[in-house]
Amino acid sequence: MPGKSKNSLKKSLNYTNLLKTANILTIMKKILISGVKPTGRPHIGNYLGAMRQFVDLQHEYDTRIFVADFHALTSVQNKDELSQATLDVAMDYLAIGLDPEKMTIYKQSDVPEVTELTWVFNCLTTVPYLSRAHAFKDAEAKNKEINVGVFDYPILMAADILIHDANVVPVGLDQKQHIEIARDTAEKFNRIFGETFALPEPLILEETQTVPGTDGQKMSKSYNNTIPLFATNEEIKKAVMSIATDSLRPEEPKKTEGDTLYILHTLFTQGSDLEKIQDGYKNGGLGYKESKEILITHITNLITPLRERREEISKDVDLVKTILEKGGKKVESITHEKMEVVREKTGLK
Amino acid sequence: MPGKSKNSLKKSLNYTNLLKTANILTIMKKILISGVKPTGRPHIGNYLGAMRQFVDLQHEYDTRIFVADFHALTSVQNKDELSQATLDVAMDYLAIGLDPEKMTIYKQSDVPEVTELTWVFNCLTTVPYLSRAHAFKDAEAKNKEINVGVFDYPILMAADILIHDANVVPVGLDQKQHIEIARDTAEKFNRIFGETFALPEPLILEETQTVPGTDGQKMSKSYNNTIPLFATNEEIKKAVMSIATDSLRPEEPKKTEGDTLYILHTLFTQGSDLEKIQDGYKNGGLGYKESKEILITHITNLITPLRERREEISKDVDLVKTILEKGGKKVESITHEKMEVVREKTGLK
Repeated sequence: MPGKSKNSLKKSLNYTNLLKTANILTIMKKILISGVKPTGRPHIGNYLGAMRQFVDLQHEYDTRIFVADFHALTSVQNKDELSQATLDVAMDYLAIGLDPEKMTIYKQSDVPEVTELTWVFNCLTTVPYLSRAHAFKDAEAKNKEINVGVFDYPILMAADILIHDANVVPVGLDQKQHIEIARDTAEKFNRIFGETFALPEPLILEETQTVPGTDGQKMSKSYNNTIPLFATNEEIKKAVMSIATDSLRPEEPKKTEGDTLYILHTLFTQGSDLEKIQDGYKNGGLGYKESKEILITHITNLITPLRERREEISKDVDLVKTILEKGGKKVESITHEKMEVVREKTGLK
Repeated sequence: MPGKSKNSLKKSLNYTNLLKTANILTIMKKILISGVKPTGRPHIGNYLGAMRQFVDLQHEYDTRIFVADFHALTSVQNKDELSQATLDVAMDYLAIGLDPEKMTIYKQSDVPEVTELTWVFNCLTTVPYLSRAHAFKDAEAKNKEINVGVFDYPILMAADILIHDANVVPVGLDQKQHIEIARDTAEKFNRIFGETFALPEPLILEETQTVPGTDGQKMSKSYNNTIPLFATNEEIKKAVMSIATDSLRPEEPKKTEGDTLYILHTLFTQGSDLEKIQDGYKNGGLGYKESKEILITHITNLITPLRERREEISKDVDLVKTILEKGGKKVESITHEKMEVVREKTGLK
């Protein structure tokens, strides 16, 4: 029957199409977007907590990282400081292993259409809704004279994410609200103007144990207790040597719980050295001086290649600028299309 | 003495330069900028109060009028409505005599860099400062769920003005605060990043007597008492005939004070007809019917050529679009340079 064979052919064609689609889906990676605010020298706490994870993520996702200079303008209002900080953070991320051949790194202000999208979203967002954002409430609690940029920050962030139709946004648990605001905004726009934006999902960054600083508090620039990620050997030594210890003699067993030095060992010391440390704490026979020297060795082993890479990169600032520019152009060609759709759907065009 | 003659030459050269500068200053007109929000059909109250004055101003100033579609988005969230309203307001202004050969008319969203400048200004503006703006306070008093676009409106307006280095901005007395906000913003930017923006001056529009509507209240769309600027003869007749009058007979003298019909005569009736009206009110001998017929004639004389021009223009929508596009391109080439300076001075570039 010719009818039947036609149908079979159709079926098999459909099946081929399905297979093709499946192949495309395998090839097309999900889009991951993340902004990093240029805020000065990173420390090993930042590295373990977030930065390091991007190096793995770039293989799994179509990864797009931007240096958030529009955001930085809410606090940095000095030309040289802002442009230096922007370059610095790009160099930091390139040094830890982001590969511009695999992913895209760019400067937020090279894609200025996000500010246009921010205006559009501002018109869909109520003042009371935005006033409930945690970051704003926290900042306002400290200083009533907060600027409108800080207030409008989550909407610029929503524009940054949605203009890419990003699928995932890596965040710490405390930043989940920003993704919720982006999702709410996408839903509002889609409801009013028709299906336009994909809804992003948060990619909660792997919880690492909080990295203690040299004084035992959480490592943080504001506590002045950090070990910089690109520290010199001298800086590492000085920082580790400053960690407070009790007066137990080498041969005595030592308490591990809440011990800053011990926690840092569990995070940075590897292999037989870690076993030695664990044994020494449990059974005695390990002085704090020796313990610190071992920690210094392992942190130095981690940091040295990163620092050397950072130094290498910083010798060719023009190359860094070119990488950012190339990234910006690539992203703009994608996001420009999206903005044309937004203009069309809102009647701005 | 050769020294002396050299000095005289120098002096005379400087004098020539001064003259040259003076000539350039005479040739360079001051820049006037004004945005008009697309808000539907204008009435003769709008025309007398503001619109008409732009027709004269275009000769005196480098006049740049934009249709404020970014602003309109705070209230119009419908594609067709917004794009139609944008075209309508452009046609209204072309019909009353704005001449795109003499001045520039463009669409705000064709110069999207104003939204980037808005972001920069947002970072210099505190939330409490902006919360004190009259328009926001008024809007918030009516509806707590006001959108962020309405809140941020004065800063977008500041960006619209300052990106042009505009010298004057025509405003009604009640809008002076917007110019103050633009001046404050320019001063803040100049103080932080160095001299960049000219300080605009308000050009207070000539006070015309408030035009009463057909019910005696101020003419306003919200009172439903208007005579549309591009009304048909039938509409004019119907509107004027609906004006309430007392029951005095034609031969009796009539009170002019607070009399809607009489006030409209003083605004629209001209020449010997106005004398006839004045005499009739003072000495009697004029019935309200005849009075209304005279008013209809004069309003019709004013409106007919404007309406016919409006009809003519509306037959070639593509031309209107082209005029707006051309205007946008012209403005963008000027404002783009300014934005490059802003990016340079803030460190975004």
